[in-house]
Amino acid sequence: MIRVNPHYAQLQTSYLFADIERRVRAFQQRRPEVDLIRLGIGDVTEPLPQACIEALHKAVDEMATASHFRGYGPEQGYDFLREAIALSDFQARGAQISADEVFVSDGAKCDVGNIQELFAADVRVAISDPVYPVYVDTNVMAGRSGAWLQNHYQNLVYLPCTAATGYAPQLPDKPVDVIYLCSPNNPTGATLTRAQLQQWVDYAAAHKALILFDAAYEAFIRDDALPHSIYEIPGAREVAIEFRSYSKTAGFTGLRCAYTVIPKTCMGWDGDGRPVSLHALWSRRQTTKFNGVSYPVQRAAKAIYSPAGQQQVRTLSDGYLANAQRIRDAFQALGHTCTGGDNSPYIWVHTGSDAWEFFDMLLEKTGVVCTPGAGFGRCGQGHVRISAFNSAAQVDAALQRIRAVLQT
Amino acid sequence: MIRVNPHYAQLQTSYLFADIERRVRAFQQRRPEVDLIRLGIGDVTEPLPQACIEALHKAVDEMATASHFRGYGPEQGYDFLREAIALSDFQARGAQISADEVFVSDGAKCDVGNIQELFAADVRVAISDPVYPVYVDTNVMAGRSGAWLQNHYQNLVYLPCTAATGYAPQLPDKPVDVIYLCSPNNPTGATLTRAQLQQWVDYAAAHKALILFDAAYEAFIRDDALPHSIYEIPGAREVAIEFRSYSKTAGFTGLRCAYTVIPKTCMGWDGDGRPVSLHALWSRRQTTKFNGVSYPVQRAAKAIYSPAGQQQVRTLSDGYLANAQRIRDAFQALGHTCTGGDNSPYIWVHTGSDAWEFFDMLLEKTGVVCTPGAGFGRCGQGHVRISAFNSAAQVDAALQRIRAVLQT
Repeated sequence: MIRVNPHYAQLQTSYLFADIERRVRAFQQRRPEVDLIRLGIGDVTEPLPQACIEALHKAVDEMATASHFRGYGPEQGYDFLREAIALSDFQARGAQISADEVFVSDGAKCDVGNIQELFAADVRVAISDPVYPVYVDTNVMAGRSGAWLQNHYQNLVYLPCTAATGYAPQLPDKPVDVIYLCSPNNPTGATLTRAQLQQWVDYAAAHKALILFDAAYEAFIRDDALPHSIYEIPGAREVAIEFRSYSKTAGFTGLRCAYTVIPKTCMGWDGDGRPVSLHALWSRRQTTKFNGVSYPVQRAAKAIYSPAGQQQVRTLSDGYLANAQRIRDAFQALGHTCTGGDNSPYIWVHTGSDAWEFFDMLLEKTGVVCTPGAGFGRCGQGHVRISAFNSAAQVDAALQRIRAVLQT
Repeated sequence: MIRVNPHYAQLQTSYLFADIERRVRAFQQRRPEVDLIRLGIGDVTEPLPQACIEALHKAVDEMATASHFRGYGPEQGYDFLREAIALSDFQARGAQISADEVFVSDGAKCDVGNIQELFAADVRVAISDPVYPVYVDTNVMAGRSGAWLQNHYQNLVYLPCTAATGYAPQLPDKPVDVIYLCSPNNPTGATLTRAQLQQWVDYAAAHKALILFDAAYEAFIRDDALPHSIYEIPGAREVAIEFRSYSKTAGFTGLRCAYTVIPKTCMGWDGDGRPVSLHALWSRRQTTKFNGVSYPVQRAAKAIYSPAGQQQVRTLSDGYLANAQRIRDAFQALGHTCTGGDNSPYIWVHTGSDAWEFFDMLLEKTGVVCTPGAGFGRCGQGHVRISAFNSAAQVDAALQRIRAVLQT
């Protein structure tokens, strides 16, 4: 008999964004005259940078001729892209990462989801609360979570990120083996300073723990004092894996390209306490279960590193950050405490009231869709996430409606 | 302490194609004057069909404008592609598959590798011998194989495919829960008839087992009596998952698009013997760990189903099949028994001698690279796989050299 993976039954069925869509659809049926403005899901809206468009056309033309056609590429990505990444995203910032420590993939969500396959089934996992649901769900599927107890999983270690902690995770009070960190954070928009990251790197070194550092929103950092990569922190090469994405950087959510960095000095441990290279394990995983990223898409990613590409992606993130600033200003002027929005496209608004109630109220009265913080974990209660991913005009229209309704 | 997945240590380190590459490189250094001809790895060489090229350019242009830009697509693929697949690849052949039973992905290797996540850790897995290594390795990584005992894994059930069985797997002599079938087969080129497939479907129904049917080479079937899909077989909707790929069909190895079909009537079972929808589990897996296929690539895949696209991909597979026929004829004329090559791009040549010895001899004397059958399993010993994926001119040159050397 083909028995199924029993751990899937522990997953909480109502996926956040599906829930939101259900409520939005119901609203639209009831109020078809309202023009919805979506500041919920974190999807980009601006077209691809011109440098990427040109690179795509050129690569497509190559695929049309026998002399330039490319079949299977390296599972880890083409050297032309891996070298550009190592040079521009790391070495230029003083982080010692080499091209062969970069694994190109079709999405940070895939990599962040798949990476836990490398670990033993019973390692203890620490996640922030609130948190990007993929960190949790992929560990639930692998049997690491234990049972769902009303509002948390039995075996996960939750690190509360609240106003009291400055929305930063604090070191756990019991030992953990894997720590998911995300900076700039989704959903809170908070960033981790060098000192905070150093604390985590030191913790990981002391406990032989591993940090999974999600830097998908790195391109939105403007504060020069903030680290862009965990490898800017001494000691990180031994204890951290970093995830990056072109989705938000360059509008690649529909094109699909990302990458993961695993330094060759980053070790896990076998049952006898001997070191095992996580770089070698991931390499084996990827060559066995993955066939590389579409060649034209890798060419488009490479184009981001050209002078024109760099300027164009900066313009993109500047635009979203300008939206973010206006959203933050507007909510603060309405008396709400906010995090994020300065080095992040997300604004985490302290609503005080129940998050889903605020979501429903905002939808009902303004036709603006946000994301209820409660969907990201217990500590997300009393907050909503507002996304700056929309056109300036739509953001302004949304803020005008919000001011008209919420101003007292 | 971050302990690693202990099952990776059971993987056999020398991956077949890496081994081949090592020998080829050594040969090239020793004999730089020899023009190598590669009939080893199954990678296409002909450019993309014109219909796909045009669709790619058009989709790239859409991504350059705010009005037509597409961000995140559905994780399961766009309806325009899923509907074309259901209609052309299944309903047109009398197989009752609907669009929402199709999951578009970036590779059959990924899907074939990831699907086993849905199953309990201790289900019994049956594989053909010889076999595509991904079926084996992904189950080793998940802990289902048990220890490696010299030349086989303790807990896998091997189904010998030899001259005596007509290179077809026979029903197992002990009960199994999951059965990997591949037709047209990689590596043997053998195909399964309707009667043979019906036997497997009946077996699966009787044992509540699941068939994982890999039809990546379906486009090469020319014999009208052979089934293209397992869903042409009565009862298959309840017991089978099918994997398809555009890699060999349309030369997408560098572009990346494939799909998996899970009928809504296909069930697994929980620990209490209650049915669980595998469609629902895979949907949850994909929405959690995958973000869909690149939009321009999905448009290219859709173009395959246009009248021009259909004609162009037929021309492609006709060309490779003509190569295959000449390869088969040549080896048969040299006194070797062969399978495949008629409804498959692979020719499985019975060498009699040790497979690696034959590989080395062929490389040394002719500069032609093949794949030693022993790399695919115990029953692959005494065979080599010759791939028809190359230009007609290269294939002819290879055969001329082979005839000159092997003719006695």
